[in-house]
Amino acid sequence: MHKIPVGVLGASGYAGRELCQLVLRHPALELTFATANERRGQLATIAGRELRFIAGDDAPLAAAELVFSALPHGASSEWVARAAAEGCRVVDLSSDLRPGNDYAGNAPYGLTELARPAIPNAPVVANPGCYPTAILLAIAPLLSEGLVEPGSAISIVAASGVTGAGASPRPDLLFAEIVEDYRAYAVGNAHRHLPEMRAMVHSLGADVDLIFTPHLLPVSRGILATITVPLVAPLGDVMAPWREAYAAEPFVELSDRAPSLRDVVGRNVVRIHATPLANVRRPALLIVSAIDNLMKGAAGQAVQNGNLMLGVPEAQGLPS
Amino acid sequence: MHKIPVGVLGASGYAGRELCQLVLRHPALELTFATANERRGQLATIAGRELRFIAGDDAPLAAAELVFSALPHGASSEWVARAAAEGCRVVDLSSDLRPGNDYAGNAPYGLTELARPAIPNAPVVANPGCYPTAILLAIAPLLSEGLVEPGSAISIVAASGVTGAGASPRPDLLFAEIVEDYRAYAVGNAHRHLPEMRAMVHSLGADVDLIFTPHLLPVSRGILATITVPLVAPLGDVMAPWREAYAAEPFVELSDRAPSLRDVVGRNVVRIHATPLANVRRPALLIVSAIDNLMKGAAGQAVQNGNLMLGVPEAQGLPS
Amino acid sequence: MHKIPVGVLGASGYAGRELCQLVLRHPALELTFATANERRGQLATIAGRELRFIAGDDAPLAAAELVFSALPHGASSEWVARAAAEGCRVVDLSSDLRPGNDYAGNAPYGLTELARPAIPNAPVVANPGCYPTAILLAIAPLLSEGLVEPGSAISIVAASGVTGAGASPRPDLLFAEIVEDYRAYAVGNAHRHLPEMRAMVHSLGADVDLIFTPHLLPVSRGILATITVPLVAPLGDVMAPWREAYAAEPFVELSDRAPSLRDVVGRNVVRIHATPLANVRRPALLIVSAIDNLMKGAAGQAVQNGNLMLGVPEAQGLPS
Amino acid sequence: MHKIPVGVLGASGYAGRELCQLVLRHPALELTFATANERRGQLATIAGRELRFIAGDDAPLAAAELVFSALPHGASSEWVARAAAEGCRVVDLSSDLRPGNDYAGNAPYGLTELARPAIPNAPVVANPGCYPTAILLAIAPLLSEGLVEPGSAISIVAASGVTGAGASPRPDLLFAEIVEDYRAYAVGNAHRHLPEMRAMVHSLGADVDLIFTPHLLPVSRGILATITVPLVAPLGDVMAPWREAYAAEPFVELSDRAPSLRDVVGRNVVRIHATPLANVRRPALLIVSAIDNLMKGAAGQAVQNGNLMLGVPEAQGLPS
Repeated sequence: MHKIPVGVLGASGYAGRELCQLVLRHPALELTFATANERRGQLATIAGRELRFIAGDDAPLAAAELVFSALPHGASSEWVARAAAEGCRVVDLSSDLRPGNDYAGNAPYGLTELARPAIPNAPVVANPGCYPTAILLAIAPLLSEGLVEPGSAISIVAASGVTGAGASPRPDLLFAEIVEDYRAYAVGNAHRHLPEMRAMVHSLGADVDLIFTPHLLPVSRGILATITVPLVAPLGDVMAPWREAYAAEPFVELSDRAPSLRDVVGRNVVRIHATPLANVRRPALLIVSAIDNLMKGAAGQAVQNGNLMLGVPEAQGLPS
Repeated sequence: MHKIPVGVLGASGYAGRELCQLVLRHPALELTFATANERRGQLATIAGRELRFIAGDDAPLAAAELVFSALPHGASSEWVARAAAEGCRVVDLSSDLRPGNDYAGNAPYGLTELARPAIPNAPVVANPGCYPTAILLAIAPLLSEGLVEPGSAISIVAASGVTGAGASPRPDLLFAEIVEDYRAYAVGNAHRHLPEMRAMVHSLGADVDLIFTPHLLPVSRGILATITVPLVAPLGDVMAPWREAYAAEPFVELSDRAPSLRDVVGRNVVRIHATPLANVRRPALLIVSAIDNLMKGAAGQAVQNGNLMLGVPEAQGLPS
Repeated sequence: MHKIPVGVLGASGYAGRELCQLVLRHPALELTFATANERRGQLATIAGRELRFIAGDDAPLAAAELVFSALPHGASSEWVARAAAEGCRVVDLSSDLRPGNDYAGNAPYGLTELARPAIPNAPVVANPGCYPTAILLAIAPLLSEGLVEPGSAISIVAASGVTGAGASPRPDLLFAEIVEDYRAYAVGNAHRHLPEMRAMVHSLGADVDLIFTPHLLPVSRGILATITVPLVAPLGDVMAPWREAYAAEPFVELSDRAPSLRDVVGRNVVRIHATPLANVRRPALLIVSAIDNLMKGAAGQAVQNGNLMLGVPEAQGLPS
Repeated sequence: MHKIPVGVLGASGYAGRELCQLVLRHPALELTFATANERRGQLATIAGRELRFIAGDDAPLAAAELVFSALPHGASSEWVARAAAEGCRVVDLSSDLRPGNDYAGNAPYGLTELARPAIPNAPVVANPGCYPTAILLAIAPLLSEGLVEPGSAISIVAASGVTGAGASPRPDLLFAEIVEDYRAYAVGNAHRHLPEMRAMVHSLGADVDLIFTPHLLPVSRGILATITVPLVAPLGDVMAPWREAYAAEPFVELSDRAPSLRDVVGRNVVRIHATPLANVRRPALLIVSAIDNLMKGAAGQAVQNGNLMLGVPEAQGLPS
């Protein structure tokens, strides 16, 4: 069978390597090139195959039908434009083109389950951030149904494995600095993923604030979000909003107990559990959602979007 | 110098061993006995010394001036009574005697910084739970000053190292089950520490609800609590309530950045940081507090209370 | 396609669960039953499917063509006999039937690469231990070629992840006891895997002693063996013995650098590297070999043997 | 009491920070300066105190009686000379001045227990490497008593926590690269600590080879060495050589079971266990020794030597 040629820009980071792995194992795609400027010329073993990184400037963009950009924020938008000028379609994993960010434009925000109609024909898709994926898929059914108390604040505490911070060597990400520790960061609503979350909350018609505090976990992969949502009224059938919204979704799992990282690591899924809060006078829900930050939170969702753009079955090549 | 004889009931669990260690290193205390029914007769090496566990029924209670009970919840209250009948004073680390629990009575709730006057003359002190210690010390200055919006809910997400779950062998606490995982438990306001927290919140005169979701971390020690507090009005000097409340406290540390577990592990302190929340329409604070669950959250605070009961300087024998 | 019915005895341990997972994903096998006496009646989610454990006495042995026994050492041999009496063929993962052990008899020792001709027609196969698999596959090519100095001792230091110690709750295997620790055990040549290793060394015609010291690692899976071998003479082409012995082997990987656990975890392979030792007067080699203790060291090799016994392609259903 | 002024060169690495901590807590020493070129001007919190790093060129060398150099190998010897020119005595933690290395000269090799008489009056002491400390203290009593078979090879497998690799950010030392992994490195007798070990073995009069294979553990601190030693003859009282050699040593612990990392982390000790090897035709011992690589393997031993040089009690300021 003829395979569709795709390229990966920024292939040496954690998301980039995961992308290469997914493409190499994908039955309908072939990896035409993988760029990594600082490691140009070096060999990497990915998915059992040897792969040689090339410099970005040497990438045969025109030879690829679709390019995944896992370049850093700020550096990606320029390459999206270069790839588009060469006739490539692009899934951009950086934040550059996402709503509320520096170069945001017409690219649909590729939270696939909420944006599916816009993806197939888009020249460029802005792949969501990892935290927003875990959080927005968890709260969207409540927001779009008008179940959240207007004017209230949704309080989100999320924790991520260290691959979420990237593969660049940073002294604070060394093993000896992370093991046996746990900490909050970007406290006070200072995280750079908030603009895209707020933009999506508003686009779903909800008038609520977000309070978001991320944490760094001593694990390599996974995000768990613990979300408190003030409700307009108690829900009779608590899981009904998610069951209805995601009835046909292959990558959304509803759970009758709070999910853990192990339930999702290695798979392109979000797993969601909601439970009413006892002993509070105003009705509220506690939601726990979990994803693999490199799969549904990055490379997996990028391939999911790429599949739709290329006319390939949406779930192909993705572990669920 | 004459040392004061003390005993430890339930010495083989994590809190019990930490108690033995603190007592063995304490300049004014000596360890008269350490009980551990299932390990009776066995030797343990603690603080560089060999210690032989005895059965509870063999404990020479009358020989101790003060007894620390680290027995399990439900089993402790009976032993508190036995020790009291033998003339011992008692610090009970179980939840039995805490406000809102099964055998709660007149024993003061030994969150030392909030209860100091009641401790020295109490025959029995109910040592607080680990989560309540981290949380109540973090929110008490706001509650007692009337700064929290009446009728609102304080949302608390806390994460604990696995020693918080005890040393009894449970399949779900094996290394291979915990490493690379993270999960919520007791979701929906179902944790057994909530009654004592609610009782204390009300005793501070505050009319607020609590939403509390604990999590299990792949670390051995430490608790980090991330707390969202709706305010009556914005605070000008954000840290002022804590500075004023804890000005003279040797075991409360205020921090200008969010603390991490490493900042506190091995020390009998709580470390607190608060920051205003940006981009929300109703004023709110984000507080992060951290303790070592076995020190300020259990054995350290127990010794702090024991020092007060025995007329020993409060900070003696405690790493800060 | 008709699938071959197989059963798993002792399915709730780590090897048993891995077996169930491999069988459930195997294109030619179907899982007829899975026993776990202490968890009888309980549901487990394995490979995305819900599986209900039954008691051993309720197992429909006669309905299975082949049974994998992951029962504990000492308990397994009785069940091998019961299954054989019901007409089942058996792969026994316990040590009971291995050479040098209590019930050793005619069952071939299923280190597949060294025993392939004996497997297809054997009624019962004794699946090797995890350490012996990592070690014997690493040294066999030297032993069978007469390259090891007669009368010398091969010195083996091996380290295993904690799943090698089983899933029974033991206080010393709790997360808080394992993290940040590392230790040797069974020092002085006291490990129970030595008899089968010695028996195999002698069966390969070598007259050498073994010195074996296992260690416990703070990781969940994987074994790494570091082996010092005195040679008759220096080797010109160091890797030649392995290249020749394993030329056609799908599950043996030769490496030009020392393997790490990550190179093998999740796959049914052994990965081997050998290098000559500099600055020693007698010629010697340093070999490093790595396996996943639950795959090539247990369940994977068991399925590899089962495939041969059932006439299924040897590599089917096995990740390599 | 007047405290003795000392300085630390290279204070931002793991050994440098440990040195600062030990000096800050030392009853007889005071920290005059701490250099860290790349972090000059930055504040660090060490031992509860704020410390400001200065550039090496700004260090008031003449103000210190003794300087500890934790500078990198290759960079240290120049600074040893500069400090000596300013009248300072020096403990050099780098390998530069150790026997068998580039700038080796007259500086005694400060493996304190084997070199005590040479330390007090030495202007400069070459502090041993972490692996050599764990290994040489373990085998010295056998070597000096002539108990090791002449012409044989001692086979050493050692494993170290990641702080042994330093605090410089390296991609392969990131948490996500180390957790759940374990690997050998410098295989084939290629480690840079071998020259100093060989030099010391020869200085003890032994005619034996060394085979040394280091490994990287997923822990932050600690070294465990597993050592196979061919003997001239079986030993009647196995631990006698160590008991006799180390009878008066405050920092050598003999153990009746194999030590683990936890037995030594945080303390300036080496812990040693030896056991005869069963079922081998030539007599041999298996020794396991453990140290904290940053304490007895680096900063602790440096302070131990510094104490001797300054006429301070040898054990002062050192946790044992």
